[in-house]
Amino acid sequence: MPRIAVDVLLKREILDPQGRAVEEALPGLGYDGVSEVRVGKHLEFVIDAPDDELAARVDAMCEGFLTNPVIESYRWRVIDDAERADA
Amino acid sequence: MPRIAVDVLLKREILDPQGRAVEEALPGLGYDGVSEVRVGKHLEFVIDAPDDELAARVDAMCEGFLTNPVIESYRWRVIDDAERADA
Repeated sequence: MPRIAVDVLLKREILDPQGRAVEEALPGLGYDGVSEVRVGKHLEFVIDAPDDELAARVDAMCEGFLTNPVIESYRWRVIDDAERADA
Repeated sequence: MPRIAVDVLLKREILDPQGRAVEEALPGLGYDGVSEVRVGKHLEFVIDAPDDELAARVDAMCEGFLTNPVIESYRWRVIDDAERADA
């Protein structure tokens, strides 16, 4: 069964206060030269779906439940075990 | 300047209540066959670093500030503009 990784960010035209806070904190902590920080959500899950239904089902979940499509954008990809963020 | 995407999840042995809540809500919303849901953070930023310093500087930021290495794992990659979650 495919394992899916979904990345969610606020749309580019929406102010991201958490990203701004991170960006402003970094220089004081010794991390210089970092800009355009955006902070959002990352999800990973396994879905029991045939190949020809996979994209439609993942998009339906993302648009209907996992994100707020009015203010958020998302991108998803199939990952293998070695690509899991907690691998 | 490279654009970096960082994915952060709780370590696999740590209970993820948010992932559990999502997983348990999905069937009631009509999304079946989804398991092993984990929910974490996604960050994107631009960093002004030469190639030979990039990995060390991103890892230092991730381990020293962006994650809690006691309970969280992370994975990062260089992305191009088309791969931005808010593209």
